[in-house]
Amino acid sequence: MGSVELHGRRYRLPGKPVVVICIDGCDPEYIENALSRKLCPNLSLMVSSGFSAIADCVMPSFTNPNNASIVTGAPPSVHGIAGNYYLDRETGERVMVNDARMLRGTTLLALLSQAGIRTAAVTAKDKLTRIIGHGLDGPCFSSERAGQTTLSEFGVESVEALVGRPEPDMYSPDLSLYVLDAGLALLRQNISQVLYLSLSDFVQHKYAPGEPESDAFLLAIDHRIGQFIQLGAIVGCVADHGMSRKTDFLGNAQILFVQDLLTDALGPDSAQVICPITDPFVRHHGALGSFVRVYLADQRNTQAATDLLRQSPGVHDVLSRDEAARELSLPHDLEADLVVISQQDWVLGASRQDHDLSAVQDRPLRSHGGYTEQRVPFLISHPLDSEGLAWALSTRLHNYDIFCAILNHTDSVGQD
Amino acid sequence: MGSVELHGRRYRLPGKPVVVICIDGCDPEYIENALSRKLCPNLSLMVSSGFSAIADCVMPSFTNPNNASIVTGAPPSVHGIAGNYYLDRETGERVMVNDARMLRGTTLLALLSQAGIRTAAVTAKDKLTRIIGHGLDGPCFSSERAGQTTLSEFGVESVEALVGRPEPDMYSPDLSLYVLDAGLALLRQNISQVLYLSLSDFVQHKYAPGEPESDAFLLAIDHRIGQFIQLGAIVGCVADHGMSRKTDFLGNAQILFVQDLLTDALGPDSAQVICPITDPFVRHHGALGSFVRVYLADQRNTQAATDLLRQSPGVHDVLSRDEAARELSLPHDLEADLVVISQQDWVLGASRQDHDLSAVQDRPLRSHGGYTEQRVPFLISHPLDSEGLAWALSTRLHNYDIFCAILNHTDSVGQD
Repeated sequence: MGSVELHGRRYRLPGKPVVVICIDGCDPEYIENALSRKLCPNLSLMVSSGFSAIADCVMPSFTNPNNASIVTGAPPSVHGIAGNYYLDRETGERVMVNDARMLRGTTLLALLSQAGIRTAAVTAKDKLTRIIGHGLDGPCFSSERAGQTTLSEFGVESVEALVGRPEPDMYSPDLSLYVLDAGLALLRQNISQVLYLSLSDFVQHKYAPGEPESDAFLLAIDHRIGQFIQLGAIVGCVADHGMSRKTDFLGNAQILFVQDLLTDALGPDSAQVICPITDPFVRHHGALGSFVRVYLADQRNTQAATDLLRQSPGVHDVLSRDEAARELSLPHDLEADLVVISQQDWVLGASRQDHDLSAVQDRPLRSHGGYTEQRVPFLISHPLDSEGLAWALSTRLHNYDIFCAILNHTDSVGQD
Repeated sequence: MGSVELHGRRYRLPGKPVVVICIDGCDPEYIENALSRKLCPNLSLMVSSGFSAIADCVMPSFTNPNNASIVTGAPPSVHGIAGNYYLDRETGERVMVNDARMLRGTTLLALLSQAGIRTAAVTAKDKLTRIIGHGLDGPCFSSERAGQTTLSEFGVESVEALVGRPEPDMYSPDLSLYVLDAGLALLRQNISQVLYLSLSDFVQHKYAPGEPESDAFLLAIDHRIGQFIQLGAIVGCVADHGMSRKTDFLGNAQILFVQDLLTDALGPDSAQVICPITDPFVRHHGALGSFVRVYLADQRNTQAATDLLRQSPGVHDVLSRDEAARELSLPHDLEADLVVISQQDWVLGASRQDHDLSAVQDRPLRSHGGYTEQRVPFLISHPLDSEGLAWALSTRLHNYDIFCAILNHTDSVGQD
């Protein structure tokens, strides 16, 4: 039986189709709510007949660190991607993490493809393709750029021809459903055997569990999960992070502008605040999340800044660089001087002027990044073996354990 | 203008009726959910025309520490009540906190009554009367023992005659509604001017936001709030703690038995685990909450126990005695060697044999005690003055600020 090894973990090569879906921003409450109303038959079947748990995502509870974790089976301290956006300590530049420069080591998808397993990765947001597709010898593309694919760059001649419909709107539920439909086509046409499908959280940023729009979205996902199972795949579903309402009772966003707070207290240029949720998709969240990084010009201000932040409304915790690296498994060399984590119903911003609030005023703000969005669903369509079950029940399960659980602890090896 | 002072804070004596309701276990989500469906007209009016915020309760997010905080305007480090149940370090005995022996200093209710303001305290659970009624020169009784009142002990000859119906069932929504009806009678009959009314969380332990049973309960509370406002009272609503679902997707309670874990790892009698949620009301929660205290026989095991707990499924944080006292404002002299706080969907128990799980198997377990139940509603029927508004928006508001907000920052002084 063949296997590959990555970051100290061995993974068996599958004989059956394996599909891992990262339902971006799928707070466990969406699933609980849907199950309580018997809304999603296939998710319900996964819970009753397969394996289900509520697992942790990695901190910060943002998209890039967690997608990198899922495809590497490791926390950010190992793979090096700790945000969507970061400050380069050496150059002082602010950098969007949209390629694999920051990625340390390879990915499981790359290793599987190199071991002869036909593997593909499809994402909603194009920013992710260069991370999860790093070293991958197989199709890798986004629905965001489905109309622009070329065989040489993406491993598929025309995604639109594959899926049978044109590129979806960037701000629509279909950006995600298109990913699943592309995966179904790759599987049906026998192009790929292992699929990693990563969706967008546009719907979850806008709609709470139980709202008609989130119901419809989850049901459309559920329907496609059923099709994957019917095609003989072992399906795993996780999320990159949860999602919480970030408003007061009137529906107004509760925002602490950390840059303004520190500038007022310690003077201009005393601190640089980085919002690692920042990405090109402003209409989701206006770059407002529950986790920011603070770089201080003068380290002697560390205690004063910490005390000030701890007393501020909306702040749950302030961690030093050492604490953040140790307690949250983050890469120490990249970490800021301070990490600030907000309370459940608050978000943290940099300066008021840095955030386009008009982009997020159509609905009560929902976002993520903190501890309160760290819990994610962990569902597998097939049961774990007894060894896997013992492991899953005794460990602190993470979303990045999903490939290990499926490849090593379900009947994924046997041919159909 | 008269005033009283307690724990460094001055409170103006009110000229108008003032009613503070502690809606036990009222997670903000109950209010948000009800408001989104326009279910509760009076709560809605408080939000739109009065003052509303989401505030913190004190940790641990349990009933006794928070009721003591609300009536003293201070955290447990000041008033000394840090749980419902504790281990006496000197005698080694486990003690239920059901009287004022642990209370340090007096209460605001006592001071108001001694300053000539007709003040009353009514609770659902009798265990609380001796804490919130400590030093109170006025009616103080529970609906749990409404049938057993005497004028000398409780300040009212017959509560049943006052309310007009017999003592309610201990496990019923009416245990709480009876408290409100008693308060309405005390106000209507001009017996009291200031009322502290503390309810029971029996409904919230059993029913999630939006379920018919919790809707009906909240609507009944809302109806009575409207009556208090009609009687000319300034009404404040807070909660002693929030409430979270503590189960997996199948609805099974997720419980980490901390005593068993430590006994297995460090040997018998190596640790004593205290569940400070413990109270006589087992059918609410089976003494399973999200915060436990650990007393180690040998302090050299501190690091080993901390590491073991941090790795265990369901644990969010482990604090040392010093950290707990400092970060959570808890009395250092009473604090345990370790404080363990669970993740949102987990509870912590002592030994499996210590908990009667049959008592909580009728419905998916809901409970509290951790950070994830620290957010509580803070609603006032009348607007704050500009000074009060500035204070409320710049501070980390706690449930124990409610009397300060009403007495010092609304028009509570002026006569009707």
